[in-house]
Amino acid sequence: MIELTLDNLENFTRGTAFLGTGGGGDPYIGKLMLKHQLEKGKKIKIISPDEIKEDTFACNVLSMGAPTVFVEKVPNGPTTLHALRKVEEIIGKKFNAIMPIEAGGVNATLPLVVSALSGLPVIDADGMGRAFPELQMVTYNVGDVDINPIVAINDFYETAIFNSRNSGSGEWLARAVCVRMGGICEMACYPMNAKQIKETAIHNTIKLSFDIGEVIEKARNQKTDPVMAIINYMEKSNPPRCGKVLFSGKINDLIRETLNGFTRGKLFLKSLDSSDEMLIEFQNEFSYAKLNDKKLLAMVPDLICALDSETGEPITTDGLRYGQRIKIVAISATSIMRSKKALDLFGPRAFGLNFDYTPLEEL
Amino acid sequence: MIELTLDNLENFTRGTAFLGTGGGGDPYIGKLMLKHQLEKGKKIKIISPDEIKEDTFACNVLSMGAPTVFVEKVPNGPTTLHALRKVEEIIGKKFNAIMPIEAGGVNATLPLVVSALSGLPVIDADGMGRAFPELQMVTYNVGDVDINPIVAINDFYETAIFNSRNSGSGEWLARAVCVRMGGICEMACYPMNAKQIKETAIHNTIKLSFDIGEVIEKARNQKTDPVMAIINYMEKSNPPRCGKVLFSGKINDLIRETLNGFTRGKLFLKSLDSSDEMLIEFQNEFSYAKLNDKKLLAMVPDLICALDSETGEPITTDGLRYGQRIKIVAISATSIMRSKKALDLFGPRAFGLNFDYTPLEEL
Repeated sequence: MIELTLDNLENFTRGTAFLGTGGGGDPYIGKLMLKHQLEKGKKIKIISPDEIKEDTFACNVLSMGAPTVFVEKVPNGPTTLHALRKVEEIIGKKFNAIMPIEAGGVNATLPLVVSALSGLPVIDADGMGRAFPELQMVTYNVGDVDINPIVAINDFYETAIFNSRNSGSGEWLARAVCVRMGGICEMACYPMNAKQIKETAIHNTIKLSFDIGEVIEKARNQKTDPVMAIINYMEKSNPPRCGKVLFSGKINDLIRETLNGFTRGKLFLKSLDSSDEMLIEFQNEFSYAKLNDKKLLAMVPDLICALDSETGEPITTDGLRYGQRIKIVAISATSIMRSKKALDLFGPRAFGLNFDYTPLEEL
Repeated sequence: MIELTLDNLENFTRGTAFLGTGGGGDPYIGKLMLKHQLEKGKKIKIISPDEIKEDTFACNVLSMGAPTVFVEKVPNGPTTLHALRKVEEIIGKKFNAIMPIEAGGVNATLPLVVSALSGLPVIDADGMGRAFPELQMVTYNVGDVDINPIVAINDFYETAIFNSRNSGSGEWLARAVCVRMGGICEMACYPMNAKQIKETAIHNTIKLSFDIGEVIEKARNQKTDPVMAIINYMEKSNPPRCGKVLFSGKINDLIRETLNGFTRGKLFLKSLDSSDEMLIEFQNEFSYAKLNDKKLLAMVPDLICALDSETGEPITTDGLRYGQRIKIVAISATSIMRSKKALDLFGPRAFGLNFDYTPLEEL
């Protein structure tokens, strides 16, 4: 069991920003929300999926929307808990745990806020092992977990409850309501039992966030390169992950818009030492990185992260700005995220890109 | 009690097209749906609000969407009944009657289809006394009837259930889902008891449709002018309604688009005898008529109808086409639709128009 404290909070939210791969919104928001709960003396229990009992019944909670909106209209803990209670009411069964749908960004911290409010423990497992922009992009679907009922709620406690024929259709319908709720809404969906959690979720991603945050902090304290420290850490993890620095340079141009409930755009980078240029497209999260308009260097579901060149601090797509000195790092996704069925859910073509997935190691 | 038969069906749907004031979709669709039920021997009971018992509990059922879409993707009786059953399930109480939310277009016929499928009687009362494009534009809101729960359903039996803070917000949220469901969805909302029906609904509008259809048919058979026949009929009704022929001419131009779940556009008419021109704007229904770009001749909530010059057949906004010879008729709305609160709901400013309401009689 991990316990979140005021001391390890910053490392945790830094790690969630890294796993956000650009998406999930400013980690500062998540940090403030959790700090508020911890300062009130609330305890947040995080339990490993290895420790869960057979009667475990967990609900995924999240904020849907564009990260550019999250900064102004922050996710709401109490309404999120209300959405979870609504799911209980509909299915007629109480939850005894909470799960994050994704490991990155505000959606990695919001379940911990709901835990503080409800006393329910959070299971250290999620459906993405990173952040993805859409509801159906979860490994739960590799195991055919039902997304329904989907409860969407806004700050007025107005609710929209969906019963969709599949998670893709649930995403399609709910996103429209999210936009009309102001570009962000809170949600509860994907009720899951112990077997489903053990078999379809990606395990120990909350722990991973703590570790990543700590690795960056330690490197800074030891005056070593935090970017290389993360790559070394990932390569030594079990199972080992491939890590690469794809690019080092400054932001030369940025096209970013909040469109249909997403933050979409293109990031243009220029090397400081050579004529090399990099293009990275994003839909909330970075979806691929291309060198000199011809060579793909990384793509979803492998993780692409933008880090401050000096401090190694992860930079989210809503925080990008002209002139920033950044390093682009890529980390290979776990094997559960690279199966045929998983790639159908969140490989390049699921993002509307016209190329197939090639693993980071082979690029 | 009125009984719908294969003999009076055509008159009824013609009347609903008239009260549709341009909106509500092609009456042919509604006619086919009801013909199908009647040919199977189904009985449809229509009861006057004066006859209803104290324990009456009725649900409004409808199709939401753009009339241009209704023609290709027709409203679905069984899903509409399913939506009604869903409302029962949520509130834990069975309905013993059905109501049309509006008196015009397909939404005046769909409740009768649901009646055929369920055996529940239809109450001859509605919330608009005509057709209006949006959910909150009902006289029920003059009496503070709760719109919730709002159940939206599509042909896949996917549902979206809204609990909104007011009917305007319900419209705003549900419309987005309607668009994503393909520009049309079926709905059940505004559960109402006997007192609410008696006090806030507009009474005997189904009867009015039968009568209007019959008046037009009789005039045709007697080789008299069907347009003048309607005006005479409305002026002699109790209480008397003001009726005017605003314009006679041909369609000179037409701008029409299906946008955000509505059919929106402008209709340009030219007189055949003079240089007079008329502009009529529409959002599903005709919202105002202006002569020679300066003089307003009629506006919501008064009824503006386009009739075929020869036959008096009502023409819906989705059926308008270049060169049609038409007469524009206006009929005054009933007094319940002209109160301050009612005009806030469906007067010109509720349609985004920058002028206040002036009654038809004063223009």
